[in-house]
Amino acid sequence: MSKKIAVLPGDGIGPEIVREALKVLDCLRQEFDVAVETEEALVGGAAYDATGTPLPPETLELAKAADAVLLGAVGGPRWEPLDYSVRPERALLGLRSELGLFANLRPAVLYPQLADASTLKPEVVSGLDILIVRELTGGIYFGKPRGVRTLDDGERVGINTLIYNESEIRRIAQVAFDTAMKRGKRLCSVDKANVLECTELWREVVTEVGRDYPAVELSHMYVDNAAMQLVRAPKQFDVMVTTNLFGDILSDCAAMLTGSIGMLPSASLDEKGKGMYEPIHGSAPDIAGRGIANPLATILSLGMLFRYTFHDEDIAARIDKAVEAALDSGVRTADIWSEGTRKVSTAEMGDAVVAALRAQA
Amino acid sequence: MSKKIAVLPGDGIGPEIVREALKVLDCLRQEFDVAVETEEALVGGAAYDATGTPLPPETLELAKAADAVLLGAVGGPRWEPLDYSVRPERALLGLRSELGLFANLRPAVLYPQLADASTLKPEVVSGLDILIVRELTGGIYFGKPRGVRTLDDGERVGINTLIYNESEIRRIAQVAFDTAMKRGKRLCSVDKANVLECTELWREVVTEVGRDYPAVELSHMYVDNAAMQLVRAPKQFDVMVTTNLFGDILSDCAAMLTGSIGMLPSASLDEKGKGMYEPIHGSAPDIAGRGIANPLATILSLGMLFRYTFHDEDIAARIDKAVEAALDSGVRTADIWSEGTRKVSTAEMGDAVVAALRAQA
Ligand SMILES: [Mg+2]
Ligand SMILES: [Mg+2]
Repeated sequence: MSKKIAVLPGDGIGPEIVREALKVLDCLRQEFDVAVETEEALVGGAAYDATGTPLPPETLELAKAADAVLLGAVGGPRWEPLDYSVRPERALLGLRSELGLFANLRPAVLYPQLADASTLKPEVVSGLDILIVRELTGGIYFGKPRGVRTLDDGERVGINTLIYNESEIRRIAQVAFDTAMKRGKRLCSVDKANVLECTELWREVVTEVGRDYPAVELSHMYVDNAAMQLVRAPKQFDVMVTTNLFGDILSDCAAMLTGSIGMLPSASLDEKGKGMYEPIHGSAPDIAGRGIANPLATILSLGMLFRYTFHDEDIAARIDKAVEAALDSGVRTADIWSEGTRKVSTAEMGDAVVAALRAQA
Repeated sequence: MSKKIAVLPGDGIGPEIVREALKVLDCLRQEFDVAVETEEALVGGAAYDATGTPLPPETLELAKAADAVLLGAVGGPRWEPLDYSVRPERALLGLRSELGLFANLRPAVLYPQLADASTLKPEVVSGLDILIVRELTGGIYFGKPRGVRTLDDGERVGINTLIYNESEIRRIAQVAFDTAMKRGKRLCSVDKANVLECTELWREVVTEVGRDYPAVELSHMYVDNAAMQLVRAPKQFDVMVTTNLFGDILSDCAAMLTGSIGMLPSASLDEKGKGMYEPIHGSAPDIAGRGIANPLATILSLGMLFRYTFHDEDIAARIDKAVEAALDSGVRTADIWSEGTRKVSTAEMGDAVVAALRAQA
C-alpha cells in the first residue's frame, strides 16, 4: 500500500526548498519504485494569511492522517507584529504537541567537501558525523509551577521547573539506543547528575534502558564538559541523548561546528516512529523568491524520513549518497560556495541531486 | 595599611603553581612597593588528611579575615572514595557560600602566541578576550523543591527548580556592568526569555540595571544562540552575564575555545568585591610533584585579585604584561609547548614572569 507524506512548505524559502525535495521524491518513484504519495497543505504565515490561523484544522488533520510530515520553514517579519497565539512558529509547537513528537533527532554532519566552511580546523571537524537526540516535549520548557510572582515585600521572583518522570526518560532513551544501533553503536548521555537530582534520575533510567541494548556502548557526560568536548574533539561522539534544554543548547552548538547550517536536516518522532522532518535553518525571508536558497537540508530531511519513519535504509542511503555526489561534482549554492566551486541556483542543486540519484539506478 | 591574602595551595599541583604566584608577589613587593602580606592554610584533601575535614575552621576564619583568597586546586583520586560530605570539592562550595561569593568571573583569553593551541582557526580566535560573569550561588543549582520522589503508581519523578528573585539578578548585573566599564563597555546578557519566565525576569532586571550604566552597550541573546555564536565568531563578545547553569556551560565552552586551559584564571566575588581567585584547571594529580605544571593561570589569578579586589589596575596590568612577555620570550610549559618554543619547568616559567616584571621596574 502506498504511503503518504503531508507536505507543508510554509513561508519564505520554504516553498522553494520543498519543491526540490519533491523533485527528488519523484525521481525515487520513477527509478526505484518507491510508492509514496504526497499532499500539500498550508502552515505558518501562509496559513495565517489564508485562514487566520497558522495551523488550520485541515492541515492538522492531514498531518495526523499521513505517515510522515515534510516541512519547509515558517515565519518572517511580516507576521512578527501578530499576537503570540497566531504567530507562524506556534504551528510548529502545535504540530509537535498534537502529534506527540517527543524525540528530536539533530544530526551534525560535515562533508569533507565543505570542511573549510567551519570555524574549526579541518582536521578537527572534517567527516564529523554525530547525532543529538533531544527530548522535545518535557523538562524545564514545560514544567510547572512556572511564572513570575510578586512577593509580599514587593519583590518579583521568577520560577521554572525542571521535571522528568521515568517513563519520559525511558522512551527518549529507547529512541536514542535504537538510533545508536543503526549507527556506530555508541551513545553518550548528557546530564548534570552531580548537581541536579532530576538528571541523576535521567542517568539512572538511561542506564537501566541500556541493559536492553548490550551492543551499545553507553557513556555519561556532564553538560558543561559536553560543551567543552564538542569544541575540543567533536568526532569522539556518535549519538548523544539529553534533555530538552541541554539538547537545545548542544544541538545548536554542534550544528555550528559544521559551519554550514544550510546542510542540516532534523526529525521529530513520536512513540511509533512517525515523524515530522524539516531543515534546521529558518525561512530566510531576506533571500526568499530569489532561487538561491540551499535545498540540501530539506532533501536530507527527506532522507531521514525514509530512514526513521519508513525504515527504508536503502533509499535513505541513496539520498545521502546523491547529496555527496552532487557536492563532489562541484556545485554549490551561495551559502556554501567557495573559490574553485560552481555557484548554482536552488533548482540546479536539486537537479544535481536528482542526476546523481539517476546515476545510481 | 598592609593587605592580607589568604593562600590556600590545596592538592595535586596546587602547591607547585601557588609557589610561583607567591614568587611574583615577592617581586611586586620588592620592585613596586606593593604592601601585601600572605598567610597559608590547608584546604581540600590536604586539610582532610591533617584534620579530618576539607575546610577546617581555622582555614575558614583566615579566609574570612583576609582581604582576598588565592587558591590552587583541590581533589584527587586518593579522596574520591570518601563520603560526599568530606570530599575536597566540598571546601570550594563551603568557601563560596560562607564568603557569599555570588559572582564568578571567567575570562577566556587567547594570547596570539598560543593561537595554534585552539581547535578553531587562528583568525577566528587569535586575540580572543572575553569575560563571562556567571551567577554562582542561585538558580537551578540551589532552587527548591528538588529531589527524586516516587509517585503513588510507583513511578519516580525528578525535580529541580530554577528560581531567581530580583535582588539576586540585580547584584550580578551590577557586577557585570561594573566589569564592562573596566573593559570594552559592551555587555551581552544571556537568557532563554522566549521560553523560561524566570529568565524573562532576568532580562527585565538586567535591562533596568542597565539604565544606571548608559555608557555600556547592552544586548541580549538566547542561550542556544550564544553557544552557536561562541563557535561562529567568539570575538564579537566583550563581557557576557548569565545564570549559574548557563554560565557553567558557556564558560567551559569559551575556555575550550582557547585550547589552553592551563592559562585561564577565575575570580569569585562577594557584594563588596572581596574575592577568591583560582585557576580554572584542576589539581592534575597525574603530573603533581613533577615540576611541569603551568603556573600561568594561577599567576593571572593573582592579577585578577589586584584588578577586582585591590582595584589596583596598574599592578594587574603589569602582571598581565609580564605573562605576555614571558610567552614572547619563547618559554612554554609542556601543556602549551609547540615546535620552535623552549619547554620549561613550572619554576622556570615563574622565573620568566618575575624577570619580565623586573624589566618593567
Ligand atoms: Mg535552539
Ligand atoms: Mg563547569
